[in-house]
Amino acid sequence: MNKIEHIGIAVKNLEESNLLFEKLFGALAYKQEEVESEGVKTSFFMNGPNKIELLEATREDSPIAKFIDKKGEGIHHIAFDVDDIVLEMERLKNEGFVLLNEAPKSGADNKLVAFLHPKTTNGVLIELCQEKR
Amino acid sequence: MNKIEHIGIAVKNLEESNLLFEKLFGALAYKQEEVESEGVKTSFFMNGPNKIELLEATREDSPIAKFIDKKGEGIHHIAFDVDDIVLEMERLKNEGFVLLNEAPKSGADNKLVAFLHPKTTNGVLIELCQEKR
Repeated sequence: MNKIEHIGIAVKNLEESNLLFEKLFGALAYKQEEVESEGVKTSFFMNGPNKIELLEATREDSPIAKFIDKKGEGIHHIAFDVDDIVLEMERLKNEGFVLLNEAPKSGADNKLVAFLHPKTTNGVLIELCQEKR
Repeated sequence: MNKIEHIGIAVKNLEESNLLFEKLFGALAYKQEEVESEGVKTSFFMNGPNKIELLEATREDSPIAKFIDKKGEGIHHIAFDVDDIVLEMERLKNEGFVLLNEAPKSGADNKLVAFLHPKTTNGVLIELCQEKR
């Protein structure tokens, strides 16, 4: 794991939260993107070597809608940048972590992603992400 | 704000969580430290330009004990590295953010720190931190 690639934050209203994070960072979101398969629209802010991803649900069965129902708005996941997601998934499985995906799937921002089950990581939803080659 | 300085994770048992994060990162914590004034003991892991701080409460009235009672273990805060914490606090106050501290206070890992109220930041507890000079 090379660094925190991004932190994902669940928000109710992406437009309002964009304004808020623009004020926080003193800079605009560099990208907005919808991920149909996950039922989310997202926006990304750069912060040095790291990113902040805001996530708004686009339908009721979106993981983000369920998260907000249960816990309210807030930090949803941490994503770590990895060089080889398949190798890293294998390494973590061997260490006893439970993966939520059998194979990497396509995520926002040109990434292959996979998640670790928060029950094996102190309640923290951890995403592995690798730039698509 | 230069980068994510660290992510703080509230844990029930620091020794057990140290073992878990050692497996996750394939590396040992580089530091353990108690912050008496906050009622926490902490350990720090390096991850490239970023850190992960694990926090265990040392007494019942610790903010970490209250957080775990309410929400369970998990991500407690994001800390952003800033060059001049006093200037940044002033800038954010002028942007309408609510600060939890009137002046910077001494935190773990040789930092001056201040927090933004999560009600003004989408439910995210944000820490500003500046290396002590």
